[in-house]
Amino acid sequence: MRAVVLRRFGGPGQLRTESVPEPAPREGESVIDVTLAGLNFADLEIREGAYAPPPLPAVLGVDVVGRRRSDGRRVAALLREGGGYAQAAVARDACTVHVPDHIDDAQALGLLEQGSTAYGALVTAGRLRPGESVAVAAAAGGVGHLAVQLALALGARTVAGIASTPAKRRFVRSLGARVAVGAPERLSEELPEGVDLYLDSVGGPALRAGLAALAPFGRLVTIGERGAGPGSSVPVEELTGSSVGVHGFWMRHVLADPALFARTADALFTLAGRGQVRARVDRVVPLDGVGAAHEAMAARETLGKVLVDVRA
Amino acid sequence: MRAVVLRRFGGPGQLRTESVPEPAPREGESVIDVTLAGLNFADLEIREGAYAPPPLPAVLGVDVVGRRRSDGRRVAALLREGGGYAQAAVARDACTVHVPDHIDDAQALGLLEQGSTAYGALVTAGRLRPGESVAVAAAAGGVGHLAVQLALALGARTVAGIASTPAKRRFVRSLGARVAVGAPERLSEELPEGVDLYLDSVGGPALRAGLAALAPFGRLVTIGERGAGPGSSVPVEELTGSSVGVHGFWMRHVLADPALFARTADALFTLAGRGQVRARVDRVVPLDGVGAAHEAMAARETLGKVLVDVRA
Repeated sequence: MRAVVLRRFGGPGQLRTESVPEPAPREGESVIDVTLAGLNFADLEIREGAYAPPPLPAVLGVDVVGRRRSDGRRVAALLREGGGYAQAAVARDACTVHVPDHIDDAQALGLLEQGSTAYGALVTAGRLRPGESVAVAAAAGGVGHLAVQLALALGARTVAGIASTPAKRRFVRSLGARVAVGAPERLSEELPEGVDLYLDSVGGPALRAGLAALAPFGRLVTIGERGAGPGSSVPVEELTGSSVGVHGFWMRHVLADPALFARTADALFTLAGRGQVRARVDRVVPLDGVGAAHEAMAARETLGKVLVDVRA
Repeated sequence: MRAVVLRRFGGPGQLRTESVPEPAPREGESVIDVTLAGLNFADLEIREGAYAPPPLPAVLGVDVVGRRRSDGRRVAALLREGGGYAQAAVARDACTVHVPDHIDDAQALGLLEQGSTAYGALVTAGRLRPGESVAVAAAAGGVGHLAVQLALALGARTVAGIASTPAKRRFVRSLGARVAVGAPERLSEELPEGVDLYLDSVGGPALRAGLAALAPFGRLVTIGERGAGPGSSVPVEELTGSSVGVHGFWMRHVLADPALFARTADALFTLAGRGQVRARVDRVVPLDGVGAAHEAMAARETLGKVLVDVRA
């Protein structure tokens, strides 16, 4: 099969299309004949050897859609150990979901990783209830733009998005956010009664500003802090003084509970089927275009999911 | 009227019964002809001048039950500014609830402050759902013993209590807790699948041990840290690494929302009416016995609520 192989950690030029043997499934795994694979920001750090470096040579890529070879079903899967940038991938059955007919391949892939993260942060960790106000950091981003739509679909009273540029804020408003601001410190002007649920993906001072924007009994859910250096710490007395909470969310804990993952994907596909959530796709590239796509992502030129058509 | 008056910060001997003028209600306040007033641990610190010192002379006491003079209704109230150890007290109407006929004065008072705290921590902050597992620190204490019963009444799958002595652990088991252990570090033996909701009132290393005992998507709710010194801080990456959350809860934020306070009291009185929650009353003392009761509380000789019968 054809795959994008990484033989040395380094720049995008290290990603080269090669012919390699197909991977073999173990117990509880299946081969998927891939149509589209996703590129994710974490892939860039893995490629550089800066984060969770895999044994080399490696095929990167953690999300695919295609047909399961054993039963011919159309499925999407999250691959905790990579292997996505390839014409065939091995996926754990517990991390594989059936894709309903009304969801096309690009949407399935656009929703699965980032949508499950947004849904898990808002619902599973954040326990969003109808009528609550929600603020989303990096609201034009891969997780953020889905979180804005999901919060509205799940009955949030008001959704505010934080995004760094006027163009991104226009995009966030086009998704239905009533408020779009440039920094979490600006939220108190727009939502003086406070935010019930704040989805953070930035960390550091922005996380602290998000906490300060919460209403009593509000929760901040963080899906991870950007950047190197020591992470944030939150003083407990700040939480008791305001009756607020801070939660961590890691997608790994959804995947560790196959029933929860299946419910999450089902909820996403149902909302997508009703037109309430739509993943933005930036571009679809061929296998030979993966290196250039990595460059575009690193330069923050992409807005939405970047997909690889592994058949092209 | 007769009241226990504090003229100088200091030991229990500073609490003396005197005849003093009745307090006058302002807008939105009413006079309550008190039957029972509650003693609370915070009163001991206030008496010493160590915490939130009021202007002197002062009448301490933050919870009363009696009859509202204006309409003769039986009510219980939380008094954010004290004034409870007296035959008449002034309460904000927004912090006053009607006591149903099936709840006697001692139960109303035993439930109002500690029960609202337990309920608020479990439900309003902790968002307890039926089927979850709950652990309660200081489970034989004023808030803790009500939290154990409330968690069970609200459908918790398993309730574990943490208490320091075998006698207290027997008491905790008698309330329905399936597990009673001496320290949070012991929870993992008894609940290897982890705790969904942990109610902390200890802070420091015990809080960190409580966090470590949580299942994915579990929450620790703290109602405050004991002891002086700098409070705890929680690293955000510890929360994301385990997909858990930490919440602060302060009763003040319930009282700031009169509808929420009314719902909370109503839920408590309903559960008490069904026999699902019962406040333990340690003793009822006369006004002249308040100093000695403070001494007993400081010596940790009491187990349950200490009440003052202001008519005695």
